[in-house]
Amino acid sequence: MANQKMVEQITSMDVDFAQWYTDVVKKAELVDYSGVKGCMIIRPYGYAIWENIQKELDARFKKTGHENVYMPMFIPESLLQKEKDHVAGFAPECAIVTIGGQNHLSERLIVRPTSETLFCEHFKNIIQSYRDLPKLYNQWVNVVRWEKTTRPFLRTSEFLWQEGHTMHETEAEAREETQKMLKVYEEFYLNVLAIPAITGQKTDKEKFAGAEETYTIEPMMHNGVALQGGTSHYFGDGFAKAFDITFTGRDNKVNYPHQTSWGVSTRMIGAIIMAHGDDNGLILPPKVAPIQVVIIPVAQHKEGVLEKAAEVKARLEAAGYRVKLDDSDQSTGWKYSQYEMKGVPVRLEIGPRDIESNNCVLVSRVSREKNFVSLDNLEAEVEKMLTFVHDELVNRARVNLAEKTHEATSHEEFLDVAANKPGFIKAMWCGDSACEDQLKDETGGVKSRCIPFVEDHLSDTCVCCGRPAKHMVVWGRQY
Amino acid sequence: MANQKMVEQITSMDVDFAQWYTDVVKKAELVDYSGVKGCMIIRPYGYAIWENIQKELDARFKKTGHENVYMPMFIPESLLQKEKDHVAGFAPECAIVTIGGQNHLSERLIVRPTSETLFCEHFKNIIQSYRDLPKLYNQWVNVVRWEKTTRPFLRTSEFLWQEGHTMHETEAEAREETQKMLKVYEEFYLNVLAIPAITGQKTDKEKFAGAEETYTIEPMMHNGVALQGGTSHYFGDGFAKAFDITFTGRDNKVNYPHQTSWGVSTRMIGAIIMAHGDDNGLILPPKVAPIQVVIIPVAQHKEGVLEKAAEVKARLEAAGYRVKLDDSDQSTGWKYSQYEMKGVPVRLEIGPRDIESNNCVLVSRVSREKNFVSLDNLEAEVEKMLTFVHDELVNRARVNLAEKTHEATSHEEFLDVAANKPGFIKAMWCGDSACEDQLKDETGGVKSRCIPFVEDHLSDTCVCCGRPAKHMVVWGRQY
Repeated sequence: MANQKMVEQITSMDVDFAQWYTDVVKKAELVDYSGVKGCMIIRPYGYAIWENIQKELDARFKKTGHENVYMPMFIPESLLQKEKDHVAGFAPECAIVTIGGQNHLSERLIVRPTSETLFCEHFKNIIQSYRDLPKLYNQWVNVVRWEKTTRPFLRTSEFLWQEGHTMHETEAEAREETQKMLKVYEEFYLNVLAIPAITGQKTDKEKFAGAEETYTIEPMMHNGVALQGGTSHYFGDGFAKAFDITFTGRDNKVNYPHQTSWGVSTRMIGAIIMAHGDDNGLILPPKVAPIQVVIIPVAQHKEGVLEKAAEVKARLEAAGYRVKLDDSDQSTGWKYSQYEMKGVPVRLEIGPRDIESNNCVLVSRVSREKNFVSLDNLEAEVEKMLTFVHDELVNRARVNLAEKTHEATSHEEFLDVAANKPGFIKAMWCGDSACEDQLKDETGGVKSRCIPFVEDHLSDTCVCCGRPAKHMVVWGRQY
Repeated sequence: MANQKMVEQITSMDVDFAQWYTDVVKKAELVDYSGVKGCMIIRPYGYAIWENIQKELDARFKKTGHENVYMPMFIPESLLQKEKDHVAGFAPECAIVTIGGQNHLSERLIVRPTSETLFCEHFKNIIQSYRDLPKLYNQWVNVVRWEKTTRPFLRTSEFLWQEGHTMHETEAEAREETQKMLKVYEEFYLNVLAIPAITGQKTDKEKFAGAEETYTIEPMMHNGVALQGGTSHYFGDGFAKAFDITFTGRDNKVNYPHQTSWGVSTRMIGAIIMAHGDDNGLILPPKVAPIQVVIIPVAQHKEGVLEKAAEVKARLEAAGYRVKLDDSDQSTGWKYSQYEMKGVPVRLEIGPRDIESNNCVLVSRVSREKNFVSLDNLEAEVEKMLTFVHDELVNRARVNLAEKTHEATSHEEFLDVAANKPGFIKAMWCGDSACEDQLKDETGGVKSRCIPFVEDHLSDTCVCCGRPAKHMVVWGRQY
C-alpha cells in the first residue's frame, strides 16, 4: 500500500510523458530548480550519476591517448568572430560579460558556448612542427547557451559536458579520430548506459557551426522521440586557416593541421531517464547507478537483523559494489517504493527468517520478482542480477527502437507516419535541404536525425520531392 | 653539458624569484597564457597535477560524509545582495553578465566568485526538519574574481577550486565541521603535498566576507612569503537568517541552522612549485606527480635496451606507479634536464651494461645521486625512493619554515625583521585592527597570517602600540 501511495505521486508516462519526466527528476532528487533562469541545481543523487559517467568516459579518453586540459571560460568577442560560420551559429545564444571589477570592459567576453576558438588560439602557440602532432585534448567543463525554454538535463542555459579537441598532421588521421570517438560514444552508450542507438552523419543543414562534417549518436527515448546524444565533428583545416595555425611538415613545407572536436553532456542523464524509466520512476543502468544495491532490513528491531544487514553491506562493498543500507525508521513498504523511484537496480531484503536459513531476497528493478538466494553465493548472485538488469535494459531499448522505427516510401506515407506513429522514420532523400525544411514544416517538427552508416535502399526517389534519392535518412522529432 | 644548457634557460631563484616562478610554469609546460586577460590555460602536465589533487581530496571529503553537487555558475544580483557583509566583500571583484540571447537581461547575473548565496537558496528549499540535517555538500567548479595583476595559479581572474558548504542542527556541530575540514586540509598538505604549514584563526580584519570566524592554513614558500593555502569558515546562523532558512527542531520549535564553508583551489599548484622547486625546475611531491618514474634508456639503439625498458615500465605500472618511458631520439642529457625541469621524483636509467648485470640506476630528484639497484627488487626500491623524496621534501620545508620564522618583541625589532629577514614574524598583538593597519603600512605589506592554535607567550604587550597583548600573531607577506 505504501508502494501504491508512492506510485500515485508521479504522473503515468502514458498520460503525460513530459509531466512524468518532470515528476521523476524532482522526486528522485536528481535536480532542484534555482532562481537563475534556465539553470539547474544538480543534487547529490544526480551528480553521482554524472561522476560515474565521467569516470567511465574519462578512462576511455585516456586509453585512446587523450589528455585533459583547462581553457578559460571567457572568449573575447573578437576571437569568437574569427571563424564566420562558427560565430553565426553561436552568436544568438551567447551570455556576455560586459562588466569586470566594476568597470565596463573594453572588449566584451562571451561565456563559452563551446571552446574551438580558445583551443585554436592555444594550438597556434604550441604547434610548430609535425613532431608536435597530434594534439589530443579534452576538457570537462561548464558551458552556456542561452535557451528560451528549458528542461532539466535536456536543455538548460548552463550545462556540464566534455569537449574533445584534436589536431592532426593529415586529413586521414583527423577523419579516423572523428570516427573513433563516435565509436567510443556508441560503445559507452551500449555497454555503460544500456542504450543501443543509431549512428550516422548529420546532413549539412544539421551539422555543427563551422564543421565540414558532423557525426552523431541518436538514442530513442521511450516515447519515440530522439535525443541528440553526442556528436563528433571533422573540421578539415577551416579553423586552422582562420586562426593561422601552421606546422612544418615532414616535407619541410608549411602545412595546416586537420582538426576534430567531439562532445557529450549532462543531457545523457536525460537519455537514461527517458530511455529506461517506467511508471514507478527511474531505472538506472547498473554501471552508473550511484547505489547498485540497496539493503532493506525486514523487522529490523529484531535481534541480529541490523548486524547481519551491515555484514552483508560490508561484504558487497568489499567486492566493489556501491551499496546503501537503509536502516531508517520508515516502513519497508515506503523504502521499497523510494528506491524503485530512485531506480536502484537491485534490492536486497533480509529479515529474521532469511538469516535463520542463511538466505536473503534479491529483487531486480526490472522484473520486481523475489529471488531467494543463499548468502554463501551472495556476491555472485548480485553480479548476476546486475548483469541481468543491464542486459534487460538493452533488450527493452532495442525492442522499443525496433517497434518505433517505421519506413515511408511516399510523401503521403511519410506525413501519415509522422502524424500517427511516434518514432523514427526511414525514408529516401534527394540531398536538398529545401526538402528537409518542407518535411519539418509539414509535420510540425520532424527533422533529419542522420544518414546512418548502413543505409537501406527503400526506393529510388526522394520522399519529399520525387527527384532521384541520394541517401536514406532517419527522421524524427527531437528533444 | 646538455644539463647545463637546460639549467641556463631558467632564472636562478636567488637572482629573481618571481622570474624563476614564471620560467618554471612555462618551461615545465604547466600553463600557457591566453588572450583572455587574467585567465590561464592549464596544460596537460599542470592539469594532471590538479586531477591527482582532486582525487586525493575528493576521497577525503567523501570519507568524511560529504556529497558532491553542482550549482549554477550565475548568481542573480539580488541574491548576492542578501547578506550585507558578503556582498560588500565580493562586489568589487565581480564579472557581470548583462546580455543573454542578444537581449539585455532584466536582472544582472554575477559569475560566481563563491557560492554561499546559491547554496543558501537551495538549502531553504530542502531543509525543513532536524531530520534533514546535516547537509554536507561540496562542489568542484570554476569561479571568477576580477583581478588587476595576475600570476598563473597564484592569482587569476578565473580559477578552479572546491567549495564545501554545510548546514548543521547545532552550533557545536558546525564548529566541529569547521575545524575538521581545516584538519583535512592540514593532513592533505603534509601527507600529499609534502608541505608542513601553520594553521590558526584569521583576525577579524582578514576573515571571509560574511563569516563569524575564518580558519586558515598558511604554508611558507621557499622565499619566506606566505600563501593562504586554504580556509574554513564558521558562519553561525547569519546567512540562515538573511535567507530565512529554518527547520523544526527536536524541541518542535523553529530554529536557524548553523553553517560552514571551506575551500582550496588551483593556488595549491603554486604552493607546490614555490615550496619545493629549485634552480633546476619543479620538484613534485610523489603523490601528485603526473609522472612518478621516468625511464630513460641509455644507448637505446643497442639490442634489447628498449625491450627491457618497456618491460620495466610494464612492471612498475602493474605495481600502480605512474610511469613514462622516453624513447624519443633526444639525447639522454637533454632528457635528464627535461624531467628534472618537470620535477619527476624518480629517474630510472637502464642501458646494456645494467641489463647484463640485472641492474638499473635510480636517481631521485632531491639527491640527484646514482643508486644501482637490482631489477629483482625494482618495485620495492622505487617505493623506497618515492617515500624518500616525499620525506625529504617535508624535511626541507620544515627546515625552511623554522629558519625563516622569527620573533619580535618590540616595535623596532618588528620593523627591523620585516625589513631584513624574509619569512614569518611571531609577535604579540592587542587585538586592535588599527595596529594591523599600521604594521602593514610601516612594513610595506606585512599582514597578520593567523592567530595560531598554539600561541607562544613572547611578552605582555602589543608589538605595535604597547597596550596589553591578547594574542600571539604570525605575521608575514603573502602572495
